[in-house]
Amino acid sequence: MKKLEEKIVREGVVLPGDVLKVGSFLNQRIDTAFTLEMADEIASVYKAEKITLVLTVEASGIALAFAVAARMGVPLLFAKKSLASNLGADLLTARFHSYTHQNDCTAAVDSNYLSPCDRVLIVDDFLARGETLCGMIELIKQAGATLCGCAIAIEKGFQGGGDALRAGGVRIESLAVIDSMSSDRGIVFRE
Amino acid sequence: MKKLEEKIVREGVVLPGDVLKVGSFLNQRIDTAFTLEMADEIASVYKAEKITLVLTVEASGIALAFAVAARMGVPLLFAKKSLASNLGADLLTARFHSYTHQNDCTAAVDSNYLSPCDRVLIVDDFLARGETLCGMIELIKQAGATLCGCAIAIEKGFQGGGDALRAGGVRIESLAVIDSMSSDRGIVFRE
Repeated sequence: MKKLEEKIVREGVVLPGDVLKVGSFLNQRIDTAFTLEMADEIASVYKAEKITLVLTVEASGIALAFAVAARMGVPLLFAKKSLASNLGADLLTARFHSYTHQNDCTAAVDSNYLSPCDRVLIVDDFLARGETLCGMIELIKQAGATLCGCAIAIEKGFQGGGDALRAGGVRIESLAVIDSMSSDRGIVFRE
Repeated sequence: MKKLEEKIVREGVVLPGDVLKVGSFLNQRIDTAFTLEMADEIASVYKAEKITLVLTVEASGIALAFAVAARMGVPLLFAKKSLASNLGADLLTARFHSYTHQNDCTAAVDSNYLSPCDRVLIVDDFLARGETLCGMIELIKQAGATLCGCAIAIEKGFQGGGDALRAGGVRIESLAVIDSMSSDRGIVFRE
């Protein structure tokens, strides 16, 4: 998505440790109008898949995932990373490593909200090594639901997670794929 | 909002410790169409206030806050509860106690995303003792921005946080206010 690439170049800041800061529009201060445009693009790409549920994990993917689910007219389910008092007892859980937070997490969803009949689209803001996606795919498997694919705003292609999952047969559509980035040489996108 | 009260009665489960579980539509599995209806109601109530920014704190308020911000045509800013690697160095922070998670949290926003010119509406899914709202109000004060008011989906009126803040001059509009609730005697709403 050309407009996303332009926004990344204009507003993104490359930080040490292969971190791309795009908090000005994507994952802290959220440009709502642009998020709806990204959601339209994703909804259009997955239109034929008869999605019944959008799944994400808290917290920074929720805004985009909500916008996609609203455009598709389906519910959004977000996995929790902490076992809060309001979560209930019937849980599906999966362990994964968070690249952004540099720690191991448990993603948990109430098993009543994810059924074997669901055709699920996973949505997230970033894809790096794919560990968060693997956690969500594991939850979908446990529920016996169907994974139709994943939609990502920014994929850091050079970290390999997306291509490994594609090689394993998972459909992944990213609105922008970064092939390399550094603070001095800039950001190069995949064609 | 009558329809919200009806959904709470139909789908809500009262758990021990004054916890109301409404994960089926509000804060885990999210009914996107209904969330947009709640957002319309909130946008209409605060229409005259010339809001420039919606503020929430991760994670379960993000979907409603995004919907409100999108309806108002303004950005959404969400405070983080952990200091992730992509957060940047110029931070405003406030300590608060989370009732849902029963722990102390730090809410942090990048100071570049909250300016003295902003007219801010705080949006959250729940209001209990008001500690989360106080944390967000503190961030707005530190930035020198203007707090126009707060919009909440479900206020647990019997826990007093909303009325204490109203007594202190903060405008709070809740779509449903619960005056009492228990698993055997049901849920009573404020008129």
